Amino acid sequence: MARWEPNPRERLERAALALFVEHGYEATTVAGIADRAGLTKSTFFRHFADKREVLFGGQDALADGFGEAIRTAPPGTASVDLLAAALLAAAPFFGPERHDLGRQRRTVIAANSELQERELLKRARLAAVIADALRERGTPETAARLAAEVGVLAFGTAYARWAEPDNRQPYPQIAHAVLAELRACAADLGAQAPAPA
Amino acid sequence: MARWEPNPRERLERAALALFVEHGYEATTVAGIADRAGLTKSTFFRHFADKREVLFGGQDALADGFGEAIRTAPPGTASVDLLAAALLAAAPFFGPERHDLGRQRRTVIAANSELQERELLKRARLAAVIADALRERGTPETAARLAAEVGVLAFGTAYARWAEPDNRQPYPQIAHAVLAELRACAADLGAQAPAPA
Repeated sequence: MARWEPNPRERLERAALALFVEHGYEATTVAGIADRAGLTKSTFFRHFADKREVLFGGQDALADGFGEAIRTAPPGTASVDLLAAALLAAAPFFGPERHDLGRQRRTVIAANSELQERELLKRARLAAVIADALRERGTPETAARLAAEVGVLAFGTAYARWAEPDNRQPYPQIAHAVLAELRACAADLGAQAPAPA
Repeated sequence: MARWEPNPRERLERAALALFVEHGYEATTVAGIADRAGLTKSTFFRHFADKREVLFGGQDALADGFGEAIRTAPPGTASVDLLAAALLAAAPFFGPERHDLGRQRRTVIAANSELQERELLKRARLAAVIADALRERGTPETAARLAAEVGVLAFGTAYARWAEPDNRQPYPQIAHAVLAELRACAADLGAQAPAPA
């Protein structure tokens, strides 16, 4: 079936996502995943702590990449460009060869409230990582928090659009467009004169 | 001790928070809370589903209030004023007589990672309620999502500042100042010309 032989981690990931979609997340076992991948349970546990980590293990690497991109950007880079750099650091996770995995992952999470909660918590962690990295660059507290929320919102929106079944646009292009859109919304919101207290 | 006799719900809330702070959230039982309040366990369960709801039961009423304030604002109200209306709808929860409860609640949540996760999830629900109410008014998708995040960030920041041990400023004044600050940050972020793709 496969045109190439992916590495064990990716074979396990593909097997797990296929089973999650076919039989549901709850009903899928680690033994079943290993079996489908033609590997052993102990190989599974060399790559993942449990079946949930198949869905969320990448999030920590993603957060590290976001933080690193912001920290290593040239001095004086504007916040919006720091966010762009962070979003682009995620591009290797969202190549065209992973589009079907992204789509399946979203389907699985949408069907399970515990997984949705986990996703929300991972997003909150991502916001904390971005805000920390911005603070380290001297961004004032409130600006860092706002930019972090904008960054996470941009990432979530870009990821969702990229993973749409009929999407063929590359992730970096989507991320750039979403960030520009959010920047425009921020400008609109910021331009509104609030009514006096 | 008390200068007035609060209603049973508030007596239970005060007893629970005092015990959570003194003995820790995990070590506190519903029986202990009822006992401290001079009430029965069955009275407790008439007001709260479990001890966690003492900390989070108000969040749903808060979310309802936010949604209601946005839905019932006059047509043509700017998003930033809708957010201000939502934040002010929370004012009855944050009167000066509840300052010590707010402070204790934050102490308890800060000491327990499961409670921190619950707080993050409640905040995500609050964002969803705000975004839904804005969409109902015809706010476009991305603008609604951004404004919702700004609203939740404003609320979280205002609540934290209000609950600071030495704070004496009333919540509405704090909320107004925080929202103005975030609006200025949004304007800054929105004004940054992103580098070309």
